[in-house]
Amino acid sequence: MNDTFLKACRGEKVQYTPVWLMRQAGRYLPEYQKILAKLDFLTACRTPEIAAEITLQPVDIIGVDAAIFYSDITTTVVPMGMDLHYEVGKGPSYSNPVRTAADVDRLMVPEDSSEGLGFVYEAQKICARELANKVPLIGFAGAPFTVSAYMIEGAGSTSFAITRRMAFADTPTFKNLMNKVARHTANYLKAQAAAGANALMLFDSHAGLLGPRDYRELNLPFVKQIIADIKSTGVPILYFGLGAHASLEAISKCGADVIGIDYGLRLDEAVERLGANVSVQGNIEPYVFFRSRQEIQDRVVETLAFGKNARGHVFNLGHGVPQHAPVDQVKAMVDTVHEVSQLEAA
Amino acid sequence: MNDTFLKACRGEKVQYTPVWLMRQAGRYLPEYQKILAKLDFLTACRTPEIAAEITLQPVDIIGVDAAIFYSDITTTVVPMGMDLHYEVGKGPSYSNPVRTAADVDRLMVPEDSSEGLGFVYEAQKICARELANKVPLIGFAGAPFTVSAYMIEGAGSTSFAITRRMAFADTPTFKNLMNKVARHTANYLKAQAAAGANALMLFDSHAGLLGPRDYRELNLPFVKQIIADIKSTGVPILYFGLGAHASLEAISKCGADVIGIDYGLRLDEAVERLGANVSVQGNIEPYVFFRSRQEIQDRVVETLAFGKNARGHVFNLGHGVPQHAPVDQVKAMVDTVHEVSQLEAA
Repeated sequence: MNDTFLKACRGEKVQYTPVWLMRQAGRYLPEYQKILAKLDFLTACRTPEIAAEITLQPVDIIGVDAAIFYSDITTTVVPMGMDLHYEVGKGPSYSNPVRTAADVDRLMVPEDSSEGLGFVYEAQKICARELANKVPLIGFAGAPFTVSAYMIEGAGSTSFAITRRMAFADTPTFKNLMNKVARHTANYLKAQAAAGANALMLFDSHAGLLGPRDYRELNLPFVKQIIADIKSTGVPILYFGLGAHASLEAISKCGADVIGIDYGLRLDEAVERLGANVSVQGNIEPYVFFRSRQEIQDRVVETLAFGKNARGHVFNLGHGVPQHAPVDQVKAMVDTVHEVSQLEAA
Repeated sequence: MNDTFLKACRGEKVQYTPVWLMRQAGRYLPEYQKILAKLDFLTACRTPEIAAEITLQPVDIIGVDAAIFYSDITTTVVPMGMDLHYEVGKGPSYSNPVRTAADVDRLMVPEDSSEGLGFVYEAQKICARELANKVPLIGFAGAPFTVSAYMIEGAGSTSFAITRRMAFADTPTFKNLMNKVARHTANYLKAQAAAGANALMLFDSHAGLLGPRDYRELNLPFVKQIIADIKSTGVPILYFGLGAHASLEAISKCGADVIGIDYGLRLDEAVERLGANVSVQGNIEPYVFFRSRQEIQDRVVETLAFGKNARGHVFNLGHGVPQHAPVDQVKAMVDTVHEVSQLEAA
């Protein structure tokens, strides 16, 4: 297996900089659109053969060094008692949002982690088998704050007003929710490692919603709780706190092997603040695919240079692949990362 | 007139820390809701007596040290040829979004700044008259990137995909648009100063959409262009680039007297990076109003301490007042800022 990604996660020497892309399995790929033309999003997530096929698509098509499992962070908490729906154009929503202490009390943390999520582990077993001689599989979950915010709002939101209000007006209830979600998430991630995931990633897409002090008091402790719990799996752990720009020093001590950096920060400054004990992942601007080939090359060279002083660097975007990114441009960037970094390592 | 706000903007000695709040004239006030129950948002903006009344409401109700003119950043570019509509629940939109070089060429930069915007200056004359013995009036506009992004998308967006694509795939067209919007915005702000505005603010709500390098290459030059042009008014100039966390050093040299800081950064760290030549405005977390009175007091004390080393500190939120903020809590915070900072200054 090409283990360049796993080596960079651990800070070991590599022959070139490994690269994968957030949302690499997604709408910009015609092969993905073809599958989603026939069935809805949640059905795709819940059908092991389909989820596995989508997960594997970008490995051959764009030539990345890791596959990220195709799923949605909202599905994970269904076994806790959340009633998930999906409407085209509106995205996922819960019909029973969590608003009160009683709502939190009713949430379950199933001891049997396969309860209601067997389709994930089945799909990952297929992926692991198919990928055996190719690249590692990254399993993932939403970080507890990001997942709890969805559970509280009942759907996506721009202001997450109900979440922030609950966090400050009823902090004990909010913390109880975070704790339950964290315990369930840890079980979920450990089961993914058992099913064949070679690395585990926590996506904290709403980390930037809280100010630095609140992030450190109300969010980060629960991230640490999960990471401490899943360390026993032995696989590299990645944490990506989108927008938590002021908290990198605290994040560097969360226990993860790799810290994701969004494109709002310069990677060399992030590396300096994170220190020598973690690897970094990121952080080229995702609309780079709409630039000329020469500009793509220039930005790749710049990003590789910014990541040079990190313990290890996993090349990635600073956010997901845009929906209309031209596939040939995406592939060109991946190739450029390999070529440029190989020359530099030689 | 209470000129504490203007003094803090200029870095002069004050007896207490002045405070006003972004969106202080807005939906959390029952007096505002009463007016908006009878007429739509754009009509309120465009009727001088109404816009003036809404602007003045928070001065007496919550006791702030400055009034901010009630308007919407989308109205400004109507005289450039943008066709603005407003739908309840959907917000403002343009039926003729700017997508091509020809679209940009068609945009006008009226020499007579009152053309199509006379209602603004009329309302500000009323405000200035009513406020003469109270507090200063802040005039404002959207910064060119934020306004251009709306013009390109035609409406609000979460990803601003079309804007980012144009900025990178057709940079000359994007820069032409920015230049035209910047020239029009400078005219608009100068006319506001002539009508009675005692300070001028540029809101760059989407500054964080571009990465640090693109922000400095494609956004900041046009902010500087406006500020250089409106310096002749002699009034303090404020710039707020929401989310532009990595660019404070560059922003400190944009020419503004005051730099707004969102709640994603710690104010003392922002002050250190901005240096001694500018004042700061911000940056308490806006959902602070849902905390207990004791916690509000603690956070006010903390924020005042973080702002202590700034050349001058205008106390404000790090984002707008939330829709459901209890008015008594808002007033309590304003009072606390005055009391605590007066004791410290004594």
